[in-house]
Amino acid sequence: MATGAGNLHFEAVPGVRVAAVSAGLGRGGRDDLVLIEFAAGSVTAGVFTRSLFAAAPVLVGKRHLDIAAPRYFLINSGNANAGVGDAGIADALACCKALSKTAGVRPEEVLPFSTGVIGERLPVEKIVGSLDALVDGLSADNWERAARGIMTTDTRPKIATRQCDMAGTMVTITGIAKGAGMIQPDMATMLSYIATDAGCDRLTLSALLRRAVERSFNRITVDSDTSTNDSCMLTATGASGVDLDSDAEAREQFARMLRDLCVDLAQGIIRDAEGATKFVTVTVQNGASAGDCLKIAYAIANSPLMKTAIYAGDANWGRIVMAIGKAGVEADTSKLDVWLGDVCLMLGGQKHQDYTEAAGSAVMANEDITIIVDLNSGICTETVWTSDLSHEYVRINAEYRT
Amino acid sequence: MATGAGNLHFEAVPGVRVAAVSAGLGRGGRDDLVLIEFAAGSVTAGVFTRSLFAAAPVLVGKRHLDIAAPRYFLINSGNANAGVGDAGIADALACCKALSKTAGVRPEEVLPFSTGVIGERLPVEKIVGSLDALVDGLSADNWERAARGIMTTDTRPKIATRQCDMAGTMVTITGIAKGAGMIQPDMATMLSYIATDAGCDRLTLSALLRRAVERSFNRITVDSDTSTNDSCMLTATGASGVDLDSDAEAREQFARMLRDLCVDLAQGIIRDAEGATKFVTVTVQNGASAGDCLKIAYAIANSPLMKTAIYAGDANWGRIVMAIGKAGVEADTSKLDVWLGDVCLMLGGQKHQDYTEAAGSAVMANEDITIIVDLNSGICTETVWTSDLSHEYVRINAEYRT
Repeated sequence: MATGAGNLHFEAVPGVRVAAVSAGLGRGGRDDLVLIEFAAGSVTAGVFTRSLFAAAPVLVGKRHLDIAAPRYFLINSGNANAGVGDAGIADALACCKALSKTAGVRPEEVLPFSTGVIGERLPVEKIVGSLDALVDGLSADNWERAARGIMTTDTRPKIATRQCDMAGTMVTITGIAKGAGMIQPDMATMLSYIATDAGCDRLTLSALLRRAVERSFNRITVDSDTSTNDSCMLTATGASGVDLDSDAEAREQFARMLRDLCVDLAQGIIRDAEGATKFVTVTVQNGASAGDCLKIAYAIANSPLMKTAIYAGDANWGRIVMAIGKAGVEADTSKLDVWLGDVCLMLGGQKHQDYTEAAGSAVMANEDITIIVDLNSGICTETVWTSDLSHEYVRINAEYRT
Repeated sequence: MATGAGNLHFEAVPGVRVAAVSAGLGRGGRDDLVLIEFAAGSVTAGVFTRSLFAAAPVLVGKRHLDIAAPRYFLINSGNANAGVGDAGIADALACCKALSKTAGVRPEEVLPFSTGVIGERLPVEKIVGSLDALVDGLSADNWERAARGIMTTDTRPKIATRQCDMAGTMVTITGIAKGAGMIQPDMATMLSYIATDAGCDRLTLSALLRRAVERSFNRITVDSDTSTNDSCMLTATGASGVDLDSDAEAREQFARMLRDLCVDLAQGIIRDAEGATKFVTVTVQNGASAGDCLKIAYAIANSPLMKTAIYAGDANWGRIVMAIGKAGVEADTSKLDVWLGDVCLMLGGQKHQDYTEAAGSAVMANEDITIIVDLNSGICTETVWTSDLSHEYVRINAEYRT
C-alpha cells in the first residue's frame, strides 16, 4: 500500500532486551533469528492458534508456559516447523535446550516460535550455531531490528508503543507483530510479542490479553486462511513498580492502552497485507447478536468478488448484497441500510433513491474505505478489517516458493 | 481452460420447445432472452438459492410453482432483478403477465428467471417488446442457442444429454446450465434447466432432483460466493410414456442418469470457472461424518492460498495442511494421509519418507488435479470440485462492470 513505512517509533521496556541475527535460514543475509529476554520475575500470558495442525513450537511453547515463567522467546522466520510430525517437537526442544545452556536457564524457561514454509524440517544446527552471537547482541533498543527479523512476506515491520502516567509512574507497552498472508487469526495473529513494565499476576494478564486480542487480531482477515503458527504473547516485567492487580483504575487504563496498541498492530498487518492497495473497515451494527454481525462482516470481508471490486475501485454494491445474503443470518431485509463511507447505498432493503454511481465511485477511489451494514434489529455491533484482492496478491502467492 | 468448447451434443426432449432472442439488455447483439415451453400436463420440480437476499424472480417463481404447473420459463441474462426491493417483484410479475397474454396461459403458469448485475431495475419494456419474436422462434432443437442465451461471464455453453432404454422405450434427459463466478451454490446452481420425457408426479420428481443436486451442483465452488438467483429446475413431460412412479427399477435408472447429467453440467461450470486454468477434485474420505468431510474439503477448495499454489503448479502441500487445520474438525492428525493424485504426500500425519518435490510437481503440472485427504477414522466420503485462482480471475472481476 502507498501508506509508507508506518510509524517505527518505540520505547524500550525496562526488564526486556532484544536481539536479531542472520542464521542463514534461506532469506539471503536478512536477520531471521530473534531473541527476546525478560528479567527474572516477569509474568507471561499467551494465546495460540486453534488449528488442528498447530505447529511444533506452539505445542512446545504451550507446555513450557504451563510449567515455568519464560525468560526467553527464541523466534525464527523462514521455516514454520509445522506438519513434520514428532520430529518437529524434537527440533523445537533441541533449540530450547541449546539456548538454555548458553543463557544459563532451564530449557522450559525458553519458548520457541517459528514462521515460514510449512512441512520442512527446522535447520536446528544453523539456529544453534547462531545462539552465542544472538545472546551477545541483546540490547533494550533492538525492537525494530526484531520486528524486521520475524518478517516473511511482510514488506515492513509492525511496531507500536503506548505510554501512560499511572499515579505518577510512567508505564510502557511496546509490541511487534508480523503477518501479511494466511491471516484470519483464530485466537491470535501470526506472531506478536508485547511487553510492558507494569506488574501483574498471570491470570489477570491472561484475561487482559484475551480481551484485547478478541477485538484486534481476532477481527482481521486477509484471505480467510488461518496459520498453523499463530501466537500472541504479552509479558509484564513489573520494572515500573506499578501493580495492576492491586489497582483497579490502573488496570482499566492499562486494558484500554493494550487494546489500542493491539488494534494498531492488527491494522498494521492489514495495511501490509499481501498485494493490498486498500484498507477496508466493515462494520455491521444494530444486529440481534454479535455472532450475526460477525457472520455478515466476514462474509463481506472474505468474498473474493467483493475484494476484487474494491481493488478495481468499483462501487459494485450488488456484491455487498450478495455477501449479506449468503452469510446464513436470519434478518428482515426490509429494515436493512447499507452505507459506503458517508454515502447511503441502500435504505430499507432497496437502493437509496438519491444514490448515484458517481457518489459511490468517489468513495471507492479512497485508499481507506468503510462499509457499514445497519440491521436495525438489535444492539450489537462488530467491526472487521480487511484488504482487497489484487493481481499482486496472486503473483506473491503463486511465486512464494519459487 | 484449454479443454476446448466441451461436448455440445444434445437430444431434443419430446414435449419441450425452446427459443432465444436478443432483447438488447446490454450485451451487444447477443441473445439474452430465453423461453422454454412445456407441453400441457408436464410436471416441474425446482430448488432455489437460500440467500437472504433471494432475487425477485426466485420469490415469484417459488410462489407460482406452489400454485400451478409451469408451461413457460422466461429467462433473461444481463440483469439479476435482485436487491431492488418490491419493485423487482412487480417487474417480474409484469413480464409473466405479458407472456401469459402472448402465449394464452395464466400468469402463474410462467416462471421468471434472471441473471446478471445485481441492484438495477429490470428493463421490462425491452423484454415485453421481444415476446412475440420469442414465441415465434420456439423449436424443439434450440437447446444450444438457449444455453448460450443464459450466459454471463461464461465463455462457453454448458449442455448435457443422457438417454436410456427403459423396458423398450427410449427416455431422454437434456439440461443446460450457466455460471462461472459467484459459485458456491446453496441448494442449486446459478441457473440450470433440465427436461425429460419421462413421466413423474411432483413429489417424486422433487425428491429425484434434490438428491441429484446435492451431489453435483451443491458440491462445486469457484469463489465461495453464493448467488442471489440460483435456481435448478427439472421438468418431466411424460411424452415417452414411461412412468417413474409405477416402476421402481426405471426410477433408480433415471436417478442414476439424472445425477450423472447434473455432475456433467456442474463440472462444466468449474471447467469454465472465471479465470480457471485447472480442474481440481478434492476428496475427503473415511471421516467420522459427512459434515466433517465437507468442512475439510471446502476449507481446501476455498483457500485463496491453496488456489494460488494450484495456479502456479506449486506442490505447496503445507497449504493443504494449513487448510485441514483451520477447518474446525476434531481429528487425530497422526492417522491422516494426504495424496496428490497417486503421489503420497503425508502418511500418518507426517511427510511421506519417499515424497519428492519432483513427484509433487509432476502431478501439479496436469490440468486435472486430485487431492485426497484420508482421515482413517470412519466410513464417510465427500467430493468437492473447484478451480484455481489466477490473474485472469482478478482481471475479470475487477473489470466486470467497466
